[in-house]
Amino acid sequence: MNDKPHIVIVGAGAIGAFYGAVLKRAGCRVSVVLRSDYDAVAEHGFTVNSPLGDLSYKPDGVYRKGGNNADTNDVAADYVICCVKVLPDTDRAALITPWVSAGTRIVLIENGIDIEPPVAEAFPDNPLISCLAFIAVNRTEVPGVIEHVAYGRLALGVWPEGVTEDCRALAQWFEQEGIDVKLAESVVRERWIKSVWNTPFNPLSVLAGGADMASMLDAPGGEALARALMAEVTAVAAAHGYPLPDDIIDRNIASTRKMPGYRNSMALDYLAGRPMEIEAILGNVVAIAGRLSIPVPRLETIRVALAMRHE
Amino acid sequence: MNDKPHIVIVGAGAIGAFYGAVLKRAGCRVSVVLRSDYDAVAEHGFTVNSPLGDLSYKPDGVYRKGGNNADTNDVAADYVICCVKVLPDTDRAALITPWVSAGTRIVLIENGIDIEPPVAEAFPDNPLISCLAFIAVNRTEVPGVIEHVAYGRLALGVWPEGVTEDCRALAQWFEQEGIDVKLAESVVRERWIKSVWNTPFNPLSVLAGGADMASMLDAPGGEALARALMAEVTAVAAAHGYPLPDDIIDRNIASTRKMPGYRNSMALDYLAGRPMEIEAILGNVVAIAGRLSIPVPRLETIRVALAMRHE
Repeated sequence: MNDKPHIVIVGAGAIGAFYGAVLKRAGCRVSVVLRSDYDAVAEHGFTVNSPLGDLSYKPDGVYRKGGNNADTNDVAADYVICCVKVLPDTDRAALITPWVSAGTRIVLIENGIDIEPPVAEAFPDNPLISCLAFIAVNRTEVPGVIEHVAYGRLALGVWPEGVTEDCRALAQWFEQEGIDVKLAESVVRERWIKSVWNTPFNPLSVLAGGADMASMLDAPGGEALARALMAEVTAVAAAHGYPLPDDIIDRNIASTRKMPGYRNSMALDYLAGRPMEIEAILGNVVAIAGRLSIPVPRLETIRVALAMRHE
Repeated sequence: MNDKPHIVIVGAGAIGAFYGAVLKRAGCRVSVVLRSDYDAVAEHGFTVNSPLGDLSYKPDGVYRKGGNNADTNDVAADYVICCVKVLPDTDRAALITPWVSAGTRIVLIENGIDIEPPVAEAFPDNPLISCLAFIAVNRTEVPGVIEHVAYGRLALGVWPEGVTEDCRALAQWFEQEGIDVKLAESVVRERWIKSVWNTPFNPLSVLAGGADMASMLDAPGGEALARALMAEVTAVAAAHGYPLPDDIIDRNIASTRKMPGYRNSMALDYLAGRPMEIEAILGNVVAIAGRLSIPVPRLETIRVALAMRHE
């Protein structure tokens, strides 16, 4: 790797724009590929309001997502970071293809379980690093202006397992700018840990009409259902080879109690009419459960009820 | 009973107004108690458009539901027919109290499971007849105008079991005007049979955003979930002492396939913003399952998700 690595962020929404800003401040060359706000970002760059200080930046290259990127042939990316929403009708491999050459490390900062295979299969010879972001960051109504509210921690590792020098390099750039990074020998295990919370609460919030956490936990039977759903997730995780700590459900309930008015990301997507990562977060868990013959009647009920909604 | 029995319909919405019309044409004196449309009905009576012919009528008495019914002391009812929605905050016993004296038969034409006890406990010495209506009938936008679309069959019997002369008299009036009546030795069993369809599909349609039957059955996993929910209902029914026929689920699925664009009553209530009989149709089934230790994880998931919505 040369001194100033070139990083291409594909899908520079709030999360992509934010982590791009961090890498830019760390000294990387950062190009972005985006659909919304292209004109504003091409002209003015990103304004990033953050407790981490000034993170506003003008990307080294600004490209249209899904556009004709013929001018990119001479842009060799050291890292392509894919921050695109994981949706059934989005071909993420196709979206990153223009930026991937031999040696390009592919990095996913995305939600969900078992989301790596379509990308891994399309690029079997490129290193694949999988990341989870724990962050509150939003786009504002002003194009190109990002509001970093809090947090920002990343968990990352090679998929399906291992930590390489590529991971350490990435971690170092993030850490020098104030982002906590957990280098994970098993990033799949990290995904299961996050799934214990996300898989029940994100889809439930949609069935509950965009409800906040207190509305869910305090409804009659709410906490009991949340615990039962989490137990289904941990049973699938264990059968999948990732037994989780015994107290993980208690800890998740306790931490959720501390955020009563909080609406999770899928609730916000639902209320805003945006596409939701239901398959990545819930459908893939149910699919793994089916392959491993683990009964998940509650998760399945929620999955099908949501499918009935969207057919 | 005298030649011209006096029947008071408490809650003369579409169903109450319709069955009142039938009894009126059969020669009964029919009074109605209602909230909506009081003025129009007091002045003009009910207009009932029906394939059964002219059923429009002017009730013998028109009273305000929940109003000061001091003038009713001299109105002895032979039958009080309660057609009020079964909602947790509706005290049906209180609503019928002004019309009940010694010897008054109390009749419920209402949906749900285990909806009789609050009324039975309030009037332990009055006969209690429980009915299920299989009918498509709607109020129109014009006050006092009812549209009878199709069907009309009743299943009725003394609660919790038995068929008496009171039941036969009621059945005879309905039948002479073209309404099929099934006299049921076990009306609770009839309620369980109807519950096999209602308990899954009514609440699911709400979670699915007011979806029609085809949207539910044709969603990925939709028919399988419907069958699993029905199996939970039949398991509770069997444990409750009412084993149902082996083919009841197949028959329900087959008949549902014949009504693809149909929206059930709870879906219509949901879309219109009206209160929904979730406890009567779903909550009471889950409660019985709990008492009998029958696992109903899918029904419970739906019940709690709906509660999260309405808290």
